[in-house]
Amino acid sequence: MSKQELEVIGQDADGACCRGLASAPLAEDQAVELAKAFKALGDPVRLRLLSMIASREGGEVCVCELTPAFELSQPTISHHLKLLRQAGLIDCERRGTWVYYWVLPGVLDRLGAFLTTPEPVGVTT
Amino acid sequence: MSKQELEVIGQDADGACCRGLASAPLAEDQAVELAKAFKALGDPVRLRLLSMIASREGGEVCVCELTPAFELSQPTISHHLKLLRQAGLIDCERRGTWVYYWVLPGVLDRLGAFLTTPEPVGVTT
Repeated sequence: MSKQELEVIGQDADGACCRGLASAPLAEDQAVELAKAFKALGDPVRLRLLSMIASREGGEVCVCELTPAFELSQPTISHHLKLLRQAGLIDCERRGTWVYYWVLPGVLDRLGAFLTTPEPVGVTT
Repeated sequence: MSKQELEVIGQDADGACCRGLASAPLAEDQAVELAKAFKALGDPVRLRLLSMIASREGGEVCVCELTPAFELSQPTISHHLKLLRQAGLIDCERRGTWVYYWVLPGVLDRLGAFLTTPEPVGVTT
């Protein structure tokens, strides 16, 4: 449950952001990494959990505030949160009785930029 | 295989774009719709297929050009393309012997915008 060293989605080893989906055909290893993140987003409960965490002012949400929004058991919610964490989208920390969750900085923006069509070269807006 | 009326991801009934993931907690029905698109992206082969189509100058790719890039059977590739189509990401048309694929206009940009953190209100860059 402690903070982990999580892979930074959409970044190459040198820290430069990978090219977008529509820039050039995606390399196989990049596709494997990015598919993990999108697979984690490919479930309505996980999308709602992520949105609840991402939209929270202050950036942190106690698991005790997430569970009541769903008609699902605490273990089921915890499982979905674990999948979001394993995909490198969120992280968490236990403080006393409760676990607090937050979105890893920049990760959603990098995924968003990856999907967004690049501006044509030479065109300024 | 003909052109279909596909749901426009990330748009409300009135055509206005839905709010982003980090703007406010996502409604259940929106989460169901958006999860379909992300689930389709949650596979390395489908991500690579989509990237090959999206990055093609002219915007259209013959299935005969997609299949040789993978060590997979033609039916398997066709199945992945069908899932991308059912998710509202691409469309296709048969012309003679071959089927041609293209990305539906704006759909990737809308998904990208959905993931991207909105600018704070009152902040100009």
